Amino acid sequence: MPQPFSQILYEVEDRIATITLNRPEKLNAFTETMLQELIAAFDAADADDDVRVVIVTGAGRAFCAGADLSAGGKTFDMDAREDRESPQGQHWRDGGGKVSLRIFESRKPVIAAVNGPAVGVGVTMQLPMDIRLASTEARFGFVFTRRGVVPEACSSWFLPRVVGISRALEWVYSGKVFPAQEALEGGLVRELCAPDALLPRAREIAAEIAENTAPVSVALSRQMLWRMLGADHPMEAHKIDSRGIFQRGRSADAYEGVQSFLEKRKPEFTMSAANDMPDFFPWWKEREFE
Amino acid sequence: MPQPFSQILYEVEDRIATITLNRPEKLNAFTETMLQELIAAFDAADADDDVRVVIVTGAGRAFCAGADLSAGGKTFDMDAREDRESPQGQHWRDGGGKVSLRIFESRKPVIAAVNGPAVGVGVTMQLPMDIRLASTEARFGFVFTRRGVVPEACSSWFLPRVVGISRALEWVYSGKVFPAQEALEGGLVRELCAPDALLPRAREIAAEIAENTAPVSVALSRQMLWRMLGADHPMEAHKIDSRGIFQRGRSADAYEGVQSFLEKRKPEFTMSAANDMPDFFPWWKEREFE
Amino acid sequence: MPQPFSQILYEVEDRIATITLNRPEKLNAFTETMLQELIAAFDAADADDDVRVVIVTGAGRAFCAGADLSAGGKTFDMDAREDRESPQGQHWRDGGGKVSLRIFESRKPVIAAVNGPAVGVGVTMQLPMDIRLASTEARFGFVFTRRGVVPEACSSWFLPRVVGISRALEWVYSGKVFPAQEALEGGLVRELCAPDALLPRAREIAAEIAENTAPVSVALSRQMLWRMLGADHPMEAHKIDSRGIFQRGRSADAYEGVQSFLEKRKPEFTMSAANDMPDFFPWWKEREFE
Repeated sequence: MPQPFSQILYEVEDRIATITLNRPEKLNAFTETMLQELIAAFDAADADDDVRVVIVTGAGRAFCAGADLSAGGKTFDMDAREDRESPQGQHWRDGGGKVSLRIFESRKPVIAAVNGPAVGVGVTMQLPMDIRLASTEARFGFVFTRRGVVPEACSSWFLPRVVGISRALEWVYSGKVFPAQEALEGGLVRELCAPDALLPRAREIAAEIAENTAPVSVALSRQMLWRMLGADHPMEAHKIDSRGIFQRGRSADAYEGVQSFLEKRKPEFTMSAANDMPDFFPWWKEREFE
Repeated sequence: MPQPFSQILYEVEDRIATITLNRPEKLNAFTETMLQELIAAFDAADADDDVRVVIVTGAGRAFCAGADLSAGGKTFDMDAREDRESPQGQHWRDGGGKVSLRIFESRKPVIAAVNGPAVGVGVTMQLPMDIRLASTEARFGFVFTRRGVVPEACSSWFLPRVVGISRALEWVYSGKVFPAQEALEGGLVRELCAPDALLPRAREIAAEIAENTAPVSVALSRQMLWRMLGADHPMEAHKIDSRGIFQRGRSADAYEGVQSFLEKRKPEFTMSAANDMPDFFPWWKEREFE
Repeated sequence: MPQPFSQILYEVEDRIATITLNRPEKLNAFTETMLQELIAAFDAADADDDVRVVIVTGAGRAFCAGADLSAGGKTFDMDAREDRESPQGQHWRDGGGKVSLRIFESRKPVIAAVNGPAVGVGVTMQLPMDIRLASTEARFGFVFTRRGVVPEACSSWFLPRVVGISRALEWVYSGKVFPAQEALEGGLVRELCAPDALLPRAREIAAEIAENTAPVSVALSRQMLWRMLGADHPMEAHKIDSRGIFQRGRSADAYEGVQSFLEKRKPEFTMSAANDMPDFFPWWKEREFE
């Protein structure tokens, strides 16, 4: 496919879309352009039935060094930046948050393959991803308190849910950059890999999903689990999973799922996560920024 | 006691009710009958002051193999099943969810003693239980994406709260069956036991609760902890625990609790979880299915 | 400074306020006076820009033995206690909860240095603190079910969020007193220290925060992470962190944060957590007791 992006790479192979942050000379520092391209890439992945899983990684030695600090002290001063969109005061929206909310919406599982340093928005953008793998060379830092700003990209919502409130507070208070091993012990990443083994391992996990599971079931499951984190009672899950079992249960995928299991063969699911979602999806009204 | 059930066993001994899923020739596969009997068994346990703790286990070599797939491809197609209740379209309710919501309501602590494979509803029904012990022979699988359906039994609400969102997503995406050791590492089960040691260990934990604690305090505590998972502010807990300390504090149980402690003897609590719950209980209005 | 308190000590040194529960002859058992003094101490810490971090510990061999049981069986019977404030029936408020809610409001990170036994309110008051360190001599007990009462101090909200619902239920059901090692394994404490190393380690963690981070950023981060535990959608975080990045990004602290980083020197943040909070703070309306 033609490469429409300038600061990321987007490639689809073996039913896996790989998004590569691609400003290696800047340690893949985050920009307005990268933010727009990331959102477009997740849109492309959701619309493409040939994509079952998305992997996000970085080109060169970093994953993402965070905000591009080349503007110096005025880096976070939106009124003083000619290169930023008009801030409009209270209505200015954090760019990392736009990316996080787009990933939250994804119909495809998202695997972060953290190849190197991931700092600031470079780590907070990973939190709405589903599975995080890290190279032993990776480092992480929620450095906001050391820069005089605050955690962003919705990380105050995601981080305590991913690693627990105690670890979240500790990492955010200190603002220090910490090694991959500490990220593993704190539950931020699932496992560590030698640098050369990182992408193969991410592809192995992705392939197991792609080969065995129904895309519509995966898309529904992704939204059910993430959305129910905000639900105040298990009845909210019961309403949705009752509809899910009822509508999916009569589908061609469910017939194939049971029959292939009884016949001890790989299933061949035919329904599309882009086009065949059940009529109760989405069951929520998306929250507006205000 | 006469055994009123056909697909489960229900026995009370030493202040412990043991519910045994009892279709061993079918690996205790879940049915409509089993669902109704499970609900009736939890009703019986709550009404019986001689029951302090409930243990749930399986007969034979499995805990529960999940939905009974003997109907083949139409297993989950409610309109095509003569043996299922009339589905009524959108109003059809998932059976596993009915069981999960009933266990959520329990006034008695519930211990799962997972003796063997627990797949589909066989594992999701365990999530509203309080303590899960597993035999080294146990296996677990959230297999819904491989069958073309979705996670049920309110598991999209319970699973991330029990094991964290990352592990929950990973197990649900892959749909694979995994060994007891992985369940232990992921926090799904508290500990592993040799097969012969499983029920004795469950009874040991149950006995410590039965011998030392006030049944009304345990019932209130159970609902306080589970319900506050859905509360948006600690003030909601403060409202309830203030009422709880005030009303329980003047009760015979509180006098006995402090005096027995000061006298270094076992307490003898006399109040009933069936009849002596304080007047603010329940403090919630139960959520309706819609 | 003059010591205005009778049952606690309050000292500020090296930008750290140390609050010491100080009834060593009573194992620092909790009283109405201690509750009022704790609230006043947290008020003092929040108002004092020379305080960056608060450490809470106990004098003598205990951290806090819980409610003072010297009134015997009527300990929790508010009508039978001449020394308690008029209970006013349903409007009586749990004292531990008042402390927990005050700590929840803190603008400064709070580190518990648990030097010895911490039982009942002695452990539940720690849950809204941010980082818990324990001496190898510490012991913990959520003993409420053994005393015939219920968990208090908002612990039914905090405990499952700190250690997970399964461990929370287990500790509350059993009511047993357990060793520091079990608290470590269950995630209740961050690390264990030899008794002599406990306060130095707490001060080391506090110093890293005090030396490197912007107080306003820390205060905002603390409230963002704790408050977002109750938010039902990441959009709620996006609203706040967008305002936070916008307003803090144009502040002197953010200029200093980036410049000091680029110049590889320690930052010198000048803004006050007492006086310079951004205009959107607090973004919540505090919940009323009712």
